[in-house]
Amino acid sequence: MRLAVDVMGGDHGPGVVVTGALTALEASDAIRELILVGKESEIAAAASGIASRPRVRLLHATEVVEMEDAPMDVLRRKKDSSMGRAVDLVARGEADAVLSCGNTGALLAAATVKLRRLPGIDRAGIATVIPTPENEFVLLDAGANVEAKPIHLAHYALMGSIFSAEVLGYSKPRVGLLSNGTEESKGNELTQEAYRLCKQLDIHFIGNIEGHDLFAGRVDVVVCDGFVGNITLKTSESLAKGMFRLLKRELTATPLRRLGAWLSRGAFQSIKRRMDPDMYGSAPLLGLNGVVFKSHAGASEKAIRNGIRLATEAFRHHINDLIVTRAADASQRLAAVSTSSVAAT
Amino acid sequence: MRLAVDVMGGDHGPGVVVTGALTALEASDAIRELILVGKESEIAAAASGIASRPRVRLLHATEVVEMEDAPMDVLRRKKDSSMGRAVDLVARGEADAVLSCGNTGALLAAATVKLRRLPGIDRAGIATVIPTPENEFVLLDAGANVEAKPIHLAHYALMGSIFSAEVLGYSKPRVGLLSNGTEESKGNELTQEAYRLCKQLDIHFIGNIEGHDLFAGRVDVVVCDGFVGNITLKTSESLAKGMFRLLKRELTATPLRRLGAWLSRGAFQSIKRRMDPDMYGSAPLLGLNGVVFKSHAGASEKAIRNGIRLATEAFRHHINDLIVTRAADASQRLAAVSTSSVAAT
Repeated sequence: MRLAVDVMGGDHGPGVVVTGALTALEASDAIRELILVGKESEIAAAASGIASRPRVRLLHATEVVEMEDAPMDVLRRKKDSSMGRAVDLVARGEADAVLSCGNTGALLAAATVKLRRLPGIDRAGIATVIPTPENEFVLLDAGANVEAKPIHLAHYALMGSIFSAEVLGYSKPRVGLLSNGTEESKGNELTQEAYRLCKQLDIHFIGNIEGHDLFAGRVDVVVCDGFVGNITLKTSESLAKGMFRLLKRELTATPLRRLGAWLSRGAFQSIKRRMDPDMYGSAPLLGLNGVVFKSHAGASEKAIRNGIRLATEAFRHHINDLIVTRAADASQRLAAVSTSSVAAT
Repeated sequence: MRLAVDVMGGDHGPGVVVTGALTALEASDAIRELILVGKESEIAAAASGIASRPRVRLLHATEVVEMEDAPMDVLRRKKDSSMGRAVDLVARGEADAVLSCGNTGALLAAATVKLRRLPGIDRAGIATVIPTPENEFVLLDAGANVEAKPIHLAHYALMGSIFSAEVLGYSKPRVGLLSNGTEESKGNELTQEAYRLCKQLDIHFIGNIEGHDLFAGRVDVVVCDGFVGNITLKTSESLAKGMFRLLKRELTATPLRRLGAWLSRGAFQSIKRRMDPDMYGSAPLLGLNGVVFKSHAGASEKAIRNGIRLATEAFRHHINDLIVTRAADASQRLAAVSTSSVAAT
């Protein structure tokens, strides 16, 4: 795989991204070429002799997409941004995948315009892997599009199922529609219609799920619009962080507690590993005609390294080819339903 | 205060509710009369000599609202339900407040029909108190109504602010609109218009908040529609439970870890107390012309006891009178805006 990495978008500067990417490269023979896109001087400063390393190529770009930039403005005005140039490499066939930790909206806009969507898919969605004590579930859309139509949720269900099966290795992922209760009658207008569509798909659809199901090992793919998904993702991150903070505060409050915590430190290490949000480190923008991964702005070296591993897996499993095939099948199934429901009325 | 308690709705049977209510009664002189509503024989079986206890009255009701019952069906067909009878007591002025752990939709329907809404308020919302490592925030609507209009969210903001200030004692509660980012431009159609309205209210409105803010001590009142609220509440409960389960599993995995956990047990007890969802035990249905509190179906004795304490506080602070006064002020402020925006166009 030839991987383009936009090194400029992160909160911690290009150094963290470059180092993470180089570690990923060392760990994986699957990466034939790593193309680091950004300000050449800053990349060179991040790792000595980087330009002459095997399998590494530098691509200079003069501009940087900022978090405050409006997505469509970026496309029109920042023609030489590292993000845009990195996506261009995929569009021209010079790279097989791209990873960026920059502005999500701008990445979505650039990728949609330059790569287009996959045939049969109307909307791209961000699929974030969330660890639970029992399993990992894929949440999508985690925030690519604030509003969604029922057909978009059905496509998310299909793409999430493929991603979970191929990349995470769940053999028959349980796909649930996130709602305010598990009964079929629950939900709002959007989810009730999406329920009807999801039932027709060739996936293991388990119907409506509610918040209580998420961290109890009862669902592998959680489908919702980007507004709900973004809130659900960030609320979970906030609570997990808060609980770790509270644990630390309480466990260091007295010498006796500190001793106890030290004796049982293996437990805390294991919990941290299990619930580590950097374990996956990036999230695919599914539905685009290209492999596009997004790491969060505050991504650590470890997150970048793991994020690249995830992108490598997605590429290796040809998930976009699968999405196209399965979307064609889905469209026939859904057409059959709407015909029969028209015939019935 | 005279308090009516529907003892029949809980998952654990009337015994738990009756015992919890009697403990609350013993702990509080503020409760002049406790009216236990339900099947007389089951109430009598739950506590010996209950009928002759001071300040306790029994009201027999032959029917029980089940979780599966459709709300409007209950009103039409179960005329002698314990829930309906308990709400009737408030409607007739024989009780000052009612608490039930039964079917939420049925309680909302019964209370709306029998008590009506407060003048100036178009929709009732459930206001659930959620503990965080740093503070407690009120989340509303936590699931009374799946769909909402902007004006409903503005009323939730106002009512939540009053509840937080009066009952939880926050002197200047920070009210935030739950969205997919903190910038004013974030959100969907509903929240963007609600933002415009909330800015006009006489509350400490801090604008959009995102999931990351919830458990970081940055907001005291979280405003959203009942679909998003229900998912946010249940996701948080699910994750907190999952993390306690994981802690227990890991801390008991080896003898050494068990010893360490025993030495630092004070920390875990303190965390459990801090994050205890039973600490408040009930949630008000704000916006109704009467004090109506809902405990969850699986409520423990402790949850019922704490839930009654919360209802007592809400009654003591006359929050409904305050809501009416402040809603009248809000309606003038909002009318002024819509006039000026019409004038501006």
